[in-house]
Amino acid sequence: MSRPANKRQENSKISRELFVLTYGALVAQLCKDYEQDEDVNRHLDRMGHNIGIRLVEDFLARSAVRKCRSYSETVGMIAQVAFKLYLGITPTVSCSNTKGNEFSLILDKNPLVDFVEELPAGRSSLCYCSLLCGIIRGALEMVHLAAEVTFIQDSLKGDSVTEIGIAFLKKLEDKKPKRNNLK
Amino acid sequence: MSRPANKRQENSKISRELFVLTYGALVAQLCKDYEQDEDVNRHLDRMGHNIGIRLVEDFLARSAVRKCRSYSETVGMIAQVAFKLYLGITPTVSCSNTKGNEFSLILDKNPLVDFVEELPAGRSSLCYCSLLCGIIRGALEMVHLAAEVTFIQDSLKGDSVTEIGIAFLKKLEDKKPKRNNLK
Repeated sequence: MSRPANKRQENSKISRELFVLTYGALVAQLCKDYEQDEDVNRHLDRMGHNIGIRLVEDFLARSAVRKCRSYSETVGMIAQVAFKLYLGITPTVSCSNTKGNEFSLILDKNPLVDFVEELPAGRSSLCYCSLLCGIIRGALEMVHLAAEVTFIQDSLKGDSVTEIGIAFLKKLEDKKPKRNNLK
Repeated sequence: MSRPANKRQENSKISRELFVLTYGALVAQLCKDYEQDEDVNRHLDRMGHNIGIRLVEDFLARSAVRKCRSYSETVGMIAQVAFKLYLGITPTVSCSNTKGNEFSLILDKNPLVDFVEELPAGRSSLCYCSLLCGIIRGALEMVHLAAEVTFIQDSLKGDSVTEIGIAFLKKLEDKKPKRNNLK
């Protein structure tokens, strides 16, 4: 990272359409590069993971959120602070199991598909927004939380909403964190 | 385009870091795909052109700018309204020739390279931000203005600022425009 987040220009609010169209160009390029939808999905997820690792510093610097004490609080932070900051929307959160380690983020409108009418022909298994899953997974990893992040519903596949599932696996390095947890 | 710009959610301001990192992933992917820097530059420019063509409708709907009556006014609009809206910065404009058809946009800070320390090894001819040139060219084309848009200076290549040159070629379809000019 060239400069610490807090030294970057403060006024960095932008209109998200340029981002949405640039993301579309990235997906289109990967569809050219890889025949199999699964390969495109995997690459998007991997790219997202790299982005999440770098974005988390910016997020912690900007949001000044305090350390989360539960999975539920962490997911709330992702929905209410991170999604709002980076995508301009606030998904609804629901807890999917009694153990309290599986959650869903439900997006009534998915801004990333704002310019997309449908999946490209012959690409029915494409998870167009896999980047988002990778970002969440990468960012959580940086605060020592291992998670599986996947699409459960996808408006581009005919579902009425887009639903991202987050399943926390375990708390990593609980006693001696090398990096600051969400504080 | 799935929905007209004015029907999209109004509150679409986002923090630009996610865009900047996603753009970095796009450039990295193209560097994997193409050995020659010139090919990467050309692809970025072409992708930008496609984006500019689509973004211009969003821009006209959002900004509600009136028809520009001169090249100079058009470039001012790009710098003061479009750059501000989509990248959160306002470049300085200068006119580069006496004929009044060549202009420069000067960016003291280029937000697109916020996370980039230097050009990748062996990529000294890469124009990292070629997408921007393509976007400007594509958007101008949609309002019937043919232009060449190129990087004149690039902070990633050691220049103190980033300078984008816009040379207007001619005014297209002046009498019977098929689409609305900047109005």
